[in-house]
Amino acid sequence: MNLFIQHAAYLLRDADRVERDCDLLVQNQRIAAVGHDLAVPPGTEVIDAQGCAVIPGLINAHTHLYQNFLKGMADGLPLVPWCEATLFPMVGVIHHLYRVEQDERAGYYWSLLGALEMIRGGTTCCMDMDISMESIFRAWQDVGLRGVAAITLSNHWLPPELLIPDAILKAEALDYTARWHNPDGLVRIALGPSTPFLCDEALLTWTRDTARAYDLAVHIHVAETAGEVTESLEEKGLRPAQYLDRLGLLGPRVSAVHCVHIVEEETAALAASGATVVHCPKSNMKLADGAAPVPALMQAGVPVALGTDGCASNDLLDMWEEMRAAVLLARVSAGDAAALSAADVFRMATEHGARACGLDAGTLDVGRLADIAIVDLSGPHLRPVHDIVKTLVYCARAADVRDTIINGRVVMREREVTTVDEAALVKEADAVGQELYTRAQQSAMWRV
Amino acid sequence: MNLFIQHAAYLLRDADRVERDCDLLVQNQRIAAVGHDLAVPPGTEVIDAQGCAVIPGLINAHTHLYQNFLKGMADGLPLVPWCEATLFPMVGVIHHLYRVEQDERAGYYWSLLGALEMIRGGTTCCMDMDISMESIFRAWQDVGLRGVAAITLSNHWLPPELLIPDAILKAEALDYTARWHNPDGLVRIALGPSTPFLCDEALLTWTRDTARAYDLAVHIHVAETAGEVTESLEEKGLRPAQYLDRLGLLGPRVSAVHCVHIVEEETAALAASGATVVHCPKSNMKLADGAAPVPALMQAGVPVALGTDGCASNDLLDMWEEMRAAVLLARVSAGDAAALSAADVFRMATEHGARACGLDAGTLDVGRLADIAIVDLSGPHLRPVHDIVKTLVYCARAADVRDTIINGRVVMREREVTTVDEAALVKEADAVGQELYTRAQQSAMWRV
Repeated sequence: MNLFIQHAAYLLRDADRVERDCDLLVQNQRIAAVGHDLAVPPGTEVIDAQGCAVIPGLINAHTHLYQNFLKGMADGLPLVPWCEATLFPMVGVIHHLYRVEQDERAGYYWSLLGALEMIRGGTTCCMDMDISMESIFRAWQDVGLRGVAAITLSNHWLPPELLIPDAILKAEALDYTARWHNPDGLVRIALGPSTPFLCDEALLTWTRDTARAYDLAVHIHVAETAGEVTESLEEKGLRPAQYLDRLGLLGPRVSAVHCVHIVEEETAALAASGATVVHCPKSNMKLADGAAPVPALMQAGVPVALGTDGCASNDLLDMWEEMRAAVLLARVSAGDAAALSAADVFRMATEHGARACGLDAGTLDVGRLADIAIVDLSGPHLRPVHDIVKTLVYCARAADVRDTIINGRVVMREREVTTVDEAALVKEADAVGQELYTRAQQSAMWRV
Repeated sequence: MNLFIQHAAYLLRDADRVERDCDLLVQNQRIAAVGHDLAVPPGTEVIDAQGCAVIPGLINAHTHLYQNFLKGMADGLPLVPWCEATLFPMVGVIHHLYRVEQDERAGYYWSLLGALEMIRGGTTCCMDMDISMESIFRAWQDVGLRGVAAITLSNHWLPPELLIPDAILKAEALDYTARWHNPDGLVRIALGPSTPFLCDEALLTWTRDTARAYDLAVHIHVAETAGEVTESLEEKGLRPAQYLDRLGLLGPRVSAVHCVHIVEEETAALAASGATVVHCPKSNMKLADGAAPVPALMQAGVPVALGTDGCASNDLLDMWEEMRAAVLLARVSAGDAAALSAADVFRMATEHGARACGLDAGTLDVGRLADIAIVDLSGPHLRPVHDIVKTLVYCARAADVRDTIINGRVVMREREVTTVDEAALVKEADAVGQELYTRAQQSAMWRV
């Protein structure tokens, strides 16, 4: 099915290249033409974009969708107690369900909630470090969301109830890769060693070698808290990013999430390696982690992408609020009202996100994947428009997204999800989420 | 017209008192009953609130609606250059239009945009420090928004083009009070001496005496930037809040906006006086002002309300994002993940806002003004609900508000504004805003 988007009031090829009254043609899942007064090929579905901004789909470069079942909870705690009090018991319940009872329903439903929330806000792809199971990928396919599954790898420091033998972790990662990794489809596989302190060195070097062998992206949390840095220095004599650098685990296919507590040498190592950093400002604020040095990273040439993190520390998957949070945190923490611009942060949420996910997307250029959001500019909170990039970044909200197109397919049209029965599935997901939360609260690990 | 809200899934009398499956009766603009299985009086309009949360309307305790015409602009600058580069030229154009050409249209339209944006997000009242003109009040009445007009008073430091003689300022303030101040209606008048450094001492003492004589609220910016404090110490030998305290300008009818750069003695003086502080986290972050000591103020017993500030430094009038910003800024700036709770910030946006505005509202108790928002909880980003206060504060968005009731009148029903032809008026407002912005850009004062 081909698609023709007509008469966009604004079309942003990227943050710097804005067209007025512009058309866009999609053929075979990719952008085939962008221009003024294009002809509509016969048999092409037409979407009118008068009064709208047509933009590259937003890319949520870091989340944990299972945390959708913990929305609003796990509140008022810093990272480690936050994990121990609420997340680990929930992970424990999920592991039991999945590995003992062989019940994958939960993964389907948490991913469904996340996928619906994201497509409703014009997010067309996410990097999800999850409790991996195939039902997650089925939910993405059903909703029509593009996703990169960073298969969680961790074998260290975790409570014994949550440890999975290395052999199983590795076998499953290779199995997911063989059966699901498909750069032409909606699902890609990446390797997700949780953090340097949750993996032993053997698992990290296996990750490095496997990623190279299979040409996979690597996604890893780095230096989210100050405590992590202290421990790393004590145990390894190196700061977290330096340690990864020594192991050969930085590189162009690597995205390092958070990087709140990094120093100049680490920034330089990240830049030299070609790695991407993923910034999660709302999560870093809510957990009181601190402010990542985003302007310094960008100045050093490190592409910085943007992620919402999971719903236990945000608690939205809303890239519009996340863009604003990035600007606001950068400015107040630097004491500099010019610390990060609207265009910078738009680039983070699109082009740099595409880089983190290894996607041929993130701008509206011919040949790119047709992952597109159409934003209705008619709301009173968006008028008047003086500078479209600033209006989008500072004023637009998820509910202003009217249509979402992923891989050339219209997955939301006029704010109606076209792919699944949203209301019915949200009810089912809600019931499963409540059930799991109750089980987690009743588990021996629960400490709230 | 009486109103009956039926079967609310959740009804929040306030952040601590949550009812399930609850009804609420409105009679004569006030809440007449709250309870379970109430009888519907004959001839009463019924609103079904199944699957919804019924909450006190949110109160935006600080804004400047004229800045709606500057959305997205005035970016990347700290307070003083921000005023000089963009705001002052716009104010100059508006002054000329209003005072020379005697054209009040602009005030109507910027207030209309703001009023529509606010009621769409469940905000039922704002404190607006504006370029005062009567068309503003007419817009509030047409849309059905409750508003407190803090009549701007300033006679110092401003560029000469913007100075208005004291005699005129004072006469206008008294005239607005005589003709528009109506605690039983939608419009109230307050006195708004801009800041201690934009008013000479005579104007401040006149404000104090006039507020007492007419029982008016006083609304004033205090210690937004570090520079202001330095100047105050140099010129007056006192910090800004200390100076106001010495003049007798702190008290229970006073709301002090920002208070970013205050010290313990000022917090104590504010607490002793009974004044309210209005916190504007997004604006303070965007202009890189810093973080107000909200937890310390609350601990000292100062009621802290919440405001969006004007659209040149936010650029939304969205109290949902503002609540989240307050939590996030408090936590990251204190390095304490428990620094401010969801319940704290909900109270800021409701009860404490009512106090700043001098309103008998802010909770859903019998006898209070019927200013109410009904939030649809069906969206995928809101499920599952484990703790309704946390779900509302961390996950709910303006577009989740389904119905808004102000002074007992349904001003938005099922997301349709009932009071005005929204689409037509937004178009008119947009054209006027564009015209003024163009005139401001062409003015001799423009420096962007």
